[in-house]
Amino acid sequence: MAGKYYEEFEVGVTIDHEKRRTVSERDNQAFCDVTMNQQPLHLDADFAADTEFGERLVNGIYTMALATGLSIPDTTDGTIVANLSYDGVQHPNPVFHGDTIYARSTVLDKRETSDGERGVVTMRVEAFKVGDGEDPLVCEFERTVLSLKREHAA
Amino acid sequence: MAGKYYEEFEVGVTIDHEKRRTVSERDNQAFCDVTMNQQPLHLDADFAADTEFGERLVNGIYTMALATGLSIPDTTDGTIVANLSYDGVQHPNPVFHGDTIYARSTVLDKRETSDGERGVVTMRVEAFKVGDGEDPLVCEFERTVLSLKREHAA
Repeated sequence: MAGKYYEEFEVGVTIDHEKRRTVSERDNQAFCDVTMNQQPLHLDADFAADTEFGERLVNGIYTMALATGLSIPDTTDGTIVANLSYDGVQHPNPVFHGDTIYARSTVLDKRETSDGERGVVTMRVEAFKVGDGEDPLVCEFERTVLSLKREHAA
Repeated sequence: MAGKYYEEFEVGVTIDHEKRRTVSERDNQAFCDVTMNQQPLHLDADFAADTEFGERLVNGIYTMALATGLSIPDTTDGTIVANLSYDGVQHPNPVFHGDTIYARSTVLDKRETSDGERGVVTMRVEAFKVGDGEDPLVCEFERTVLSLKREHAA
C-alpha cells in the first residue's frame, strides 16, 4: 500500500501532495446532489449573483473532502483503521467553479494506543487554490486517524 | 427561503430533519470519485473483507456532508452568509451500503456579530442509521454558521 504505517509518520514533517484538481460546476453539483444539499448559494446562479460572492460557491465540505482525498496516497492509503476526528474545519477563502485545488499535510502529533498495537496520528491539512501570485488558503483542518502499525499489519 | 434567519434560531431547540437517504454503493463510489479519494477501505471489496469491518465502509466525510445536506432545509437554506467552522467531527459507528441515514440539529449557541448586522449560530448535528431497535449514532459534529438577520435581508 502507498500510505504510511504509524512508524513512518514523523512529527513536524510537511507533505506536499502531488495531485491537484480543477473543480468544475459538475463537481459541485454532483456533490450537492449526492449529499442532498440544495443550498441555493451552491446551485442557483441567479440567487448567488445577489450575494456578496456574486456567483455560486463550491460546497465547503466538498473542498474539505477533496483535500482529504488528495492527501490519501501519501498518508493513510490502506494503512488506516478509522478516522477519529476532524476539528477546526475552516474555509478562509471561497472556491469557485474553475479553481484548481491542491493540498498539503503536516504531522502535528503521534502516539501509540494504550495496548501498543496501533497509533493515533494528528495532521494539519491545508488546501490552496492556484492564484495569481500567492495561492489563497481555501480550507484547513486537523485530521486525527487511528493508524496501523507495520509490525501488526497482515 | 425555507431556512431560518438569525432571529428564528432558538438555543436549546432540537430539529428532527424529515428527509432521509438510503446510502448506496453508487453514492459512496461517486463521492470518492469526485473527491479523488482512492482509499481501498471504501472502494475495494476484497481488501475491505480482510479488515475488522468485513466490507466496504461508506466515506465518513460523505456521512458528514449528507447530515449537513439533510439539515439545510430547516436551518440555513438561503439564509446563510458562510459556514464558519465544523468541529469535533466523529463517526462513532460505521455506515455500510444500504444503511438509511437521518439527521437532527440542536441549537447550542447564538450571538450577534459586533456590528449587529449578522449572527453566529452553533448547532450540534447528529446523524443516525435506521437499525433494529436503537438507531446507532453514525456521525456527530458542531457546525457554526454566519447567519443573515431578517431585518437586513434583501
